[in-house]
Amino acid sequence: MGLQPLLVLSGCGVYDGSEIHESSAIMVHLSRAQAETTIFAPDIMQMHTIDHGKGEPMKPDRNVLVESARIARGKVKDLTELHAELYDAVIFPGGFGAAKNLSTFAVDGTNMRVNPEVERVLREFHVSRKPIGLCCIAPVLAAKVIPGCEVTVGKEKDMIEPKKWPYGDTVEAVQKLGAKNIPLEANQHHVDKKNKIVTTPAFMCETALHNIFDGIGKMVDGVLKLVKLRT
Amino acid sequence: MGLQPLLVLSGCGVYDGSEIHESSAIMVHLSRAQAETTIFAPDIMQMHTIDHGKGEPMKPDRNVLVESARIARGKVKDLTELHAELYDAVIFPGGFGAAKNLSTFAVDGTNMRVNPEVERVLREFHVSRKPIGLCCIAPVLAAKVIPGCEVTVGKEKDMIEPKKWPYGDTVEAVQKLGAKNIPLEANQHHVDKKNKIVTTPAFMCETALHNIFDGIGKMVDGVLKLVKLRT
Repeated sequence: MGLQPLLVLSGCGVYDGSEIHESSAIMVHLSRAQAETTIFAPDIMQMHTIDHGKGEPMKPDRNVLVESARIARGKVKDLTELHAELYDAVIFPGGFGAAKNLSTFAVDGTNMRVNPEVERVLREFHVSRKPIGLCCIAPVLAAKVIPGCEVTVGKEKDMIEPKKWPYGDTVEAVQKLGAKNIPLEANQHHVDKKNKIVTTPAFMCETALHNIFDGIGKMVDGVLKLVKLRT
Repeated sequence: MGLQPLLVLSGCGVYDGSEIHESSAIMVHLSRAQAETTIFAPDIMQMHTIDHGKGEPMKPDRNVLVESARIARGKVKDLTELHAELYDAVIFPGGFGAAKNLSTFAVDGTNMRVNPEVERVLREFHVSRKPIGLCCIAPVLAAKVIPGCEVTVGKEKDMIEPKKWPYGDTVEAVQKLGAKNIPLEANQHHVDKKNKIVTTPAFMCETALHNIFDGIGKMVDGVLKLVKLRT
């Protein structure tokens, strides 16, 4: 039997759910490693629905579990059914869904609340010493739930290349939450060996898609290496 | 300036739009080839909206252009604005959107109609001798608009592995439409040199995601090679 990782999705689309390309990249790399991936999402309403063409809210509201099923090709389970003892690792792709649906970071900043089921899952994996992978904005979840952990959400705003790190304020936010940010490029990853947390900046950086794909590949490999060290 | 290919999307999600992983794989491979990809979709309503968890229709209906913007991260243009002379190649990912929104194949089979703008685009690229890439179910569009072309939609239903080619009837359908099907695996591709059409079976085959990713990589490389031969 192959390794049994799982993904936690937050919808389907960068502005109100899981970032599609990050989610797909994680699944491609897990597939190549012959892992048997299970996908979960919370059965809650999204904070709102964004018309991704206009960048504006639209009606009606959508459900996180139902929309996540688009990325999962139908095979998605309710997050309340997730028990860490059955799985080897958990991975959270980014997208604003992590900051709008899985937590309130997009609205409340460092005063954020984390969805109770998401917090439970992170704690279960952390306590069990099983690896946690996160990319893009999702590391804020770890920064909040596991104080003092090391993550990378990329770099601060860059005066020389002002468009390169459009969400650079997040560095300060994870520091305020008590985490340490390791400044890295999109095609790099960081392993917090003590806490078994593996992160990569992904779309926090304005760069070509294949760099993000490669960074996510390193994050996935990092997660699977920690699983194999444990077993 | 890099090569200028374009994608035509049909929504966002395998059962009522563009297949998400096929679309993302195409974009990753084009990015690695340093192509400058533009994304288009028709500004029409989807045939219907499918709850991807339940596999059942749900309300309300959604718009193809608006949903495609989720895959395109907001940067998608109306298909009516597409003029073949400005681009090097066109690529159509699969997903039921190609058979429900870009054509009526899912409902009418070989009596299908193709969306007039999609038909115009295919004819413009074909007449200009510019390559056309398609995967999964999307080759039915070429089979209908460019009779006598060669495509692969994979293999017929397999008695030994009955679950491997769940959409195997499509082979007979493209033959009835006057095309020739080349039976290939998901990690292979076929080039119709005469018509400059490049295809790969993708999710027509029940296989691991990285095989589909690799087959799409070969399809994209095949398309870009034809562009370079021409220039």
